[in-house]
Amino acid sequence: MGDDARLQDILTHLDQGLEPALDRLSVFLAIPSISTDPAHAGDVRTAANWLATELEALGFTVQIHDTPGHPMVTARSQPGGARPLLFYGHYDVQPVDPLDLWDRPPFAPAIEETPTGRVIRARGASDDKGQLMTFVEAFRAWKAVHGTLPSDLILLFEGEEESGSPSLRPFLRAHADDLRASLAVICDTGRHADGRPAITTQLRGLVGQEVVIHAADRDLHSGSFGGMAANPIMVLAQALAALKDDKGRVTLPGFYDGVPDLDPQLAADWQALNFDAADFLGRVGLTTPIGEAGRTALEMMWNRPTAEINGIAGGYAGDGFKTVLPAEARAKVSFRLTGTQDPAQIRAAFQDHVRRFLPADCTASFHDHGASPASVMDISDPAFAQAKAALTEEWGQEAAYIGAGGSIPIAGDFKDILGMDSMLIGFARDDDRIHSPNEKYDVESFAKGARSWARILTALR
Amino acid sequence: MGDDARLQDILTHLDQGLEPALDRLSVFLAIPSISTDPAHAGDVRTAANWLATELEALGFTVQIHDTPGHPMVTARSQPGGARPLLFYGHYDVQPVDPLDLWDRPPFAPAIEETPTGRVIRARGASDDKGQLMTFVEAFRAWKAVHGTLPSDLILLFEGEEESGSPSLRPFLRAHADDLRASLAVICDTGRHADGRPAITTQLRGLVGQEVVIHAADRDLHSGSFGGMAANPIMVLAQALAALKDDKGRVTLPGFYDGVPDLDPQLAADWQALNFDAADFLGRVGLTTPIGEAGRTALEMMWNRPTAEINGIAGGYAGDGFKTVLPAEARAKVSFRLTGTQDPAQIRAAFQDHVRRFLPADCTASFHDHGASPASVMDISDPAFAQAKAALTEEWGQEAAYIGAGGSIPIAGDFKDILGMDSMLIGFARDDDRIHSPNEKYDVESFAKGARSWARILTALR
Repeated sequence: MGDDARLQDILTHLDQGLEPALDRLSVFLAIPSISTDPAHAGDVRTAANWLATELEALGFTVQIHDTPGHPMVTARSQPGGARPLLFYGHYDVQPVDPLDLWDRPPFAPAIEETPTGRVIRARGASDDKGQLMTFVEAFRAWKAVHGTLPSDLILLFEGEEESGSPSLRPFLRAHADDLRASLAVICDTGRHADGRPAITTQLRGLVGQEVVIHAADRDLHSGSFGGMAANPIMVLAQALAALKDDKGRVTLPGFYDGVPDLDPQLAADWQALNFDAADFLGRVGLTTPIGEAGRTALEMMWNRPTAEINGIAGGYAGDGFKTVLPAEARAKVSFRLTGTQDPAQIRAAFQDHVRRFLPADCTASFHDHGASPASVMDISDPAFAQAKAALTEEWGQEAAYIGAGGSIPIAGDFKDILGMDSMLIGFARDDDRIHSPNEKYDVESFAKGARSWARILTALR
Repeated sequence: MGDDARLQDILTHLDQGLEPALDRLSVFLAIPSISTDPAHAGDVRTAANWLATELEALGFTVQIHDTPGHPMVTARSQPGGARPLLFYGHYDVQPVDPLDLWDRPPFAPAIEETPTGRVIRARGASDDKGQLMTFVEAFRAWKAVHGTLPSDLILLFEGEEESGSPSLRPFLRAHADDLRASLAVICDTGRHADGRPAITTQLRGLVGQEVVIHAADRDLHSGSFGGMAANPIMVLAQALAALKDDKGRVTLPGFYDGVPDLDPQLAADWQALNFDAADFLGRVGLTTPIGEAGRTALEMMWNRPTAEINGIAGGYAGDGFKTVLPAEARAKVSFRLTGTQDPAQIRAAFQDHVRRFLPADCTASFHDHGASPASVMDISDPAFAQAKAALTEEWGQEAAYIGAGGSIPIAGDFKDILGMDSMLIGFARDDDRIHSPNEKYDVESFAKGARSWARILTALR
């Protein structure tokens, strides 16, 4: 039987096995593996164990590696002289708050009929449990048809992606010889906004930083002390407000060092995507790109750095009113990086910026939450063209090379530590509400995603 | 028996009855009557009922009045031709968060030995349950000695003082004939910083305002949307940061309309208080008055208006990091007023200010939390001099006329609605940690406070 016939058998097998595959995904999604919350550490390990058991049953040689944080799961298929490929996904998920905005419990997955088709709804459905299961299901179908797994596969599953991946780089260094492949395949991205399949060829980097402003040694009554004692919320507001100027540009000295102009060819490619910013924003209740003056929406998202406040808290914010001058106020800030911006330099510039706003009696403390430079892929590797053709065939529309505004630091880590490029292919939709209440993954994404991997594996094996 | 002998008997009775009086206070303090939190509505009513029962047992004619919010408790002694006096206190308390900063449960009161004497520690010990019980215990001792209560007393206890007193003004209007006296006596203030007894003759007003900035209709991933979608935390930070200029002055147009210069005589009196700002701030871990340039610390606290951010919340502020662009961000802001500043005008100016910072796609909503102008008392009423002399005798040091930075809106309401002045006498200390974790009231404040009322009642009856 030739490769084409076997591919057809694999595709048929995937189609016929869709419902049990969704059942397996539902079991995986029911595990509340929130890596950023220490209270869920046991659940994160349960998710690692579940994945390991699935892979062992498929014939992979599996290891669960303890780390100072959450476990790494690795798996290998038999060697066979094919080009070694490393597949990556992460089994941890984002927190679920605000819980009251969910229409159903976030860890009680369900298949729902919607006007645009069936979806599976749960925290992690799209990011990243549903996505990583697309290639696991493709391997399962391959084995059912071929009798063996695809050869020379290395799988790596992480449980700390949503909490800054503190253990990843040490782990890659310690296991470099076992993990090095000819190419990494990362399934944690999406299709283009219009639904066409896409390979993401550039990613913004990320610096995450928490800042706490400390003033008095206790909360004070704002009647007694207001107007005389330092207010850490005001200090914080003033420091954060000054992060951007009235053109939307970040004010940190040296921030734009290493930020490249958009390549004219890439600008032309992106123009051809006919990105409809109004439609994209309209789906979340917005109308207008608000960012740097003079940049297109896709540039703002994919090719320009930014600073965002991701969280802020201080004083009394519950029901009613409390006339308090709090002892401290805190914020979480992230910077998205492009080109060769240096995460360490930007972190230091932010800390210097905050310190300039401190009046007498106030101090600032900082907590680091991950740092990764931007990544730009080398698409001259023929695997890119082969995967692009396979995606085009599966989806019936031309696959695109696109950028992404989010960070997938592991792509940079694979390059730095293992010397290998990454091919980023995922099937998520812009409306998947990842990191938000009511996250979902289209059943079409899941089903055609698995079929896509079958085609790509056939093309690359 | 003459008044002097009877006074001595009352004072002796109070001294001998101190421990049972502290036991009664402890029972009162164990009721978690947090008026700002709807979950505690039942507890607020329990506190009202407890107080009513105590007063009835003393021979007062008591009524509990339902309101749209929490109940009012009124009580009357027998008429007797004396000058009618209205005594006011509030039986509700502030919220207790952050709970983990309390050394003991906030509603399990205990007497503690400290280096500066015995204290009773619990939420509300100082503000205002401990204070209001000073006059209740004085009435009890008076009755034990005289056989009857002091005549022509009207008592009014409120359960909404810590939540903006929404029912108070309608209640005063509806019961004006029953509540009108020759003078209101309010026990909700403190001694001067050096411990000397004090009558507070001016109070800052208050405008409380909550603002919510709304952007997208859901939380967004800051990787996908960062740099393009509006961030409500940044909009809020920019609006709040611009509330003050680099001289510490509030920037709202017209804000300083009606703010008087400090009267030279009052400036001289306050100078004589030898207020030690470094010591006052040092007790809460601060060193330096940070406020309007060119003003003394007492001016900043008592005679200058200000704007303070009392609470802020938006996005993810828990453990770890979440790269979210939140759908909304909120803050609670209060303005302290002096002179004839108009609360309504300042509220409107703040709302206009916030709206000027709104970019496309952002809206602001506002929630009002109380508004009261500043109060300045007329101390030509001889009751002031009589009370001042009684305080001086009890405490063995010259009583002072002082200002207060906090708001006691009822003083303004008594003037506006009932046409009577207020005499503000309380025994709290600056280190009582009111509105903060580990609130306490000195047993000396409680014991000598009750004795002070016995002397004042004797002087005024």
